[in-house]
Amino acid sequence: MEPHPILIAGNWRSSNAVSTFAAENPSTGAELPDRYPVSSWADIDAALNAAVEAAVLLRQTPPAKIAAFLSRFADLIEANAEKIVEMAHLETALPKSPRLANVELPRTTNQLRQASAAALEGSWAMPTIDTKLNIRSHLAAIGPVCVMGPNNFPLAFNAVSGGDFAAAIAAGNPVIAKSHPSHPGTTRLLAETAFAAMNELEMPRGMLQLIYHMSREDGLKLVADARIGATGFTGSRVAGLALKSAADAAGKPIYLEMSSLNPVIILPGALRERTDKVAEEFTTSCLAAGGQFCTKPGILLLLAGEESEQFLKNLVQRFAAAPPAPLLSRAVGKNLTNSVAKLVDAGAQVLVGAKSIEASGSRYQSTLLRVDGRQFLSDAETFQTEAFGNAAMAIVARDVDEAKKILAALDGQLTGGIYTDSHGSDDEIYLKLEPELRRRIGRLLNDKMPTGVAVTSAMNHGGPYPATGHPGFTAVGIPASMRRFSQLECYDNVRAARLPPDLQDLNPSGKMWRLIDGGWTQADAAGK
Amino acid sequence: MEPHPILIAGNWRSSNAVSTFAAENPSTGAELPDRYPVSSWADIDAALNAAVEAAVLLRQTPPAKIAAFLSRFADLIEANAEKIVEMAHLETALPKSPRLANVELPRTTNQLRQASAAALEGSWAMPTIDTKLNIRSHLAAIGPVCVMGPNNFPLAFNAVSGGDFAAAIAAGNPVIAKSHPSHPGTTRLLAETAFAAMNELEMPRGMLQLIYHMSREDGLKLVADARIGATGFTGSRVAGLALKSAADAAGKPIYLEMSSLNPVIILPGALRERTDKVAEEFTTSCLAAGGQFCTKPGILLLLAGEESEQFLKNLVQRFAAAPPAPLLSRAVGKNLTNSVAKLVDAGAQVLVGAKSIEASGSRYQSTLLRVDGRQFLSDAETFQTEAFGNAAMAIVARDVDEAKKILAALDGQLTGGIYTDSHGSDDEIYLKLEPELRRRIGRLLNDKMPTGVAVTSAMNHGGPYPATGHPGFTAVGIPASMRRFSQLECYDNVRAARLPPDLQDLNPSGKMWRLIDGGWTQADAAGK
Repeated sequence: MEPHPILIAGNWRSSNAVSTFAAENPSTGAELPDRYPVSSWADIDAALNAAVEAAVLLRQTPPAKIAAFLSRFADLIEANAEKIVEMAHLETALPKSPRLANVELPRTTNQLRQASAAALEGSWAMPTIDTKLNIRSHLAAIGPVCVMGPNNFPLAFNAVSGGDFAAAIAAGNPVIAKSHPSHPGTTRLLAETAFAAMNELEMPRGMLQLIYHMSREDGLKLVADARIGATGFTGSRVAGLALKSAADAAGKPIYLEMSSLNPVIILPGALRERTDKVAEEFTTSCLAAGGQFCTKPGILLLLAGEESEQFLKNLVQRFAAAPPAPLLSRAVGKNLTNSVAKLVDAGAQVLVGAKSIEASGSRYQSTLLRVDGRQFLSDAETFQTEAFGNAAMAIVARDVDEAKKILAALDGQLTGGIYTDSHGSDDEIYLKLEPELRRRIGRLLNDKMPTGVAVTSAMNHGGPYPATGHPGFTAVGIPASMRRFSQLECYDNVRAARLPPDLQDLNPSGKMWRLIDGGWTQADAAGK
Repeated sequence: MEPHPILIAGNWRSSNAVSTFAAENPSTGAELPDRYPVSSWADIDAALNAAVEAAVLLRQTPPAKIAAFLSRFADLIEANAEKIVEMAHLETALPKSPRLANVELPRTTNQLRQASAAALEGSWAMPTIDTKLNIRSHLAAIGPVCVMGPNNFPLAFNAVSGGDFAAAIAAGNPVIAKSHPSHPGTTRLLAETAFAAMNELEMPRGMLQLIYHMSREDGLKLVADARIGATGFTGSRVAGLALKSAADAAGKPIYLEMSSLNPVIILPGALRERTDKVAEEFTTSCLAAGGQFCTKPGILLLLAGEESEQFLKNLVQRFAAAPPAPLLSRAVGKNLTNSVAKLVDAGAQVLVGAKSIEASGSRYQSTLLRVDGRQFLSDAETFQTEAFGNAAMAIVARDVDEAKKILAALDGQLTGGIYTDSHGSDDEIYLKLEPELRRRIGRLLNDKMPTGVAVTSAMNHGGPYPATGHPGFTAVGIPASMRRFSQLECYDNVRAARLPPDLQDLNPSGKMWRLIDGGWTQADAAGK
């Protein structure tokens, strides 16, 4: 069977492939019939050249047209929802409903529409005007953006339809997308949908290009190529750090969302007050979608005491009773098995689970491990091994001081949460632990589990290294996510007619927020 | 003679030195009497530990107190202006007046006061509130900041008083400063002044620490240390890239301002209209302070024609007549000699200058080189060798197409400028050249030379790699420069009393700008 064509410079054309691959159905473990190419550098080189041309054209494209594309793409995803969901289910084993059809697909179109609105409105660029000195600056497109999507969100983080894609396009950049090889068919359908919207609106032909797979070496070469503006990557720490190293050496910005353990601290008062409710929340958050969320709570930090012992027993019952979901691929199952084995070898006690389930696909028993604080501190690096999937590790600290030390030993994380009672009995401990947790995480939660990342401008889906590559940026939340794919451009004494529209005196939409002479305003500049 | 003590954890104490050094008087070439230590890792390690403690304390310090420190420091610099200027003149040979006393010192205190006002007012942190979801985020201190200052601005970019220092402190971070070894005495006086202000206001003792010098290896270790939040560096490309590599590998943000050629394009109409005026502006900008500005126009791009030939003759006369200023050090003189030699060896024609001047200090003839466009394009890398000092290179392009190719071959730059006539005869060429120039530079100028970097929120003193390490950030311009030294921190469902003041419903100052539910406002949140 011929492999599917790739999308280069506005044409679906045969890949100059070095080999081909197929996805598997994780529910059955069977290989799916469609074959996809592993591109050679010739494909990537062609994409880079076309992206450079598209970047020039996009700089001249009115934001309203880019906004129209994003919005139309969202419409067409909805029009093709059934077949996209069907394919995503086939390739990932994620449930069609509610997950794919009722949660992830609406989230995807919502992101595209938010990006569309932000592109149209223009405030994301933070136009800044000093009327006295006639110095003006704003954020502007950075150039061709390479997007590499993860395995766990085939729609909302897909390289051709997800958050990085929407942010990069809305900021005015062309995208070279690399599909995740576990769901090439979903990526193909979404790219075909985007392509239809591009054609309808006569967008620059190289605005979106798609390559299904490439060698590790070519991936490293791509993110460091002189023609690239920046890269957005979501995936494993090993792959992310290799890409970071290549991009850094070439001075190319790269935004990475890698691994995170998302510690959740549950204090004794909260357990006395509502232990069942908290156990239910933790179990749901940890096991949903097979635990395959970047924000899955992977560490549960408790203080030694009877409440905590009872709580763990409660969790064990719930974990044992929860039917394990199929994992995204056999590779995920293998990594989970290895990670849990590494933690157990290091001394973690198995409270429940920790075994593969013999089945046609990849399933793993819902797993809860346990270490005490002293153990954890004796080898904090090993005990922070990420177990991506339906597994978590409880750490029982002797006292608050030991809990502080445990937090101080944690790597950078996307999130961290603290549960306290509603009457104030945990407040003293909260005040002691919060500062240690706060500066090691991107998003701090109270009485709430970290899964479920709202798409709002106040969101931070980012955090200190190695959760991401830079603690100042977020992958979710418009307009901040767009700013990753921009550069600061200043105009000093530039004649009025030569200024970009958003830096001219007249506010182009009357709605754009601009920082004029030190204050944010939607008014025109210079008192007009 | 005993070397001067270093400032660690609030004490001026003897360095655990590996050796000592002295500055030289660039006017005479003579070594100055004071000796300063080259610190061992033990000093740096102690500074890092104290900085971590100070970072915790600064997180609990009200912004008003940090603002008061910055403002008081500015006052005390003014009170001690005479001796600071005297010392800076002795160590750099920059004129006491107007340069040091009337330009650079007021600029330094102005920056500190702008940073003070920004810290007090709080808008820099971009507090963002979603009242419906109760998700709130802002930028917060990133942790201990290492600042390494350059040789060419002993006050305004000094690691203990300059732009990076002001930005890092105002964002709530402690600073570990490394002085530039060419002006340790100036740095000492400024640090003593800062120390007096710290004591008066009872600031955390490790808020500012000073190390005069360290080995290259220890510098690389410092910027990659787990205790560091971020680094600000201004200096040469070689040193900057080595530091970048070390910091990147450890996942530590580093902001670098390195080399830049700041191309200036002068179109024929402008020359026909005002050739003398433009020649005067170029000469002044290029030769001011011995050409030792990051924004010195190092490349002059002209179109072939009689106007350009006459203009070059005009420049040659002016360069020949300008008395060369002493360079900042013998090292600068040696580098300038080598760089010019490299350009000449590659084929550049000497129009004027290109020789050292025999004198007690380091002076170099004001130098103008020339290549044609074809030559430049044949080895664009070599012809972009930076000649830091009073030298520039004219490139004469055959036509507009060749000029476009020349711009396309340029590395990232801090600035770029285009001069055109006032009647529109150059406008067609402007439109062809501007897009190529625009995306390779941070600041675009019209009819204005790049030296002179106004301290305004609309400024961009940054640009694409390798002018800096990341094109999204600026080293000058408050509040944007502060954001470099921050991380994004989000609060999701966090109880009201536990929120930082700037994320609570009530606007703490009534003046802070916050992005609430999509609009910038100074009002309280939730309609209160």
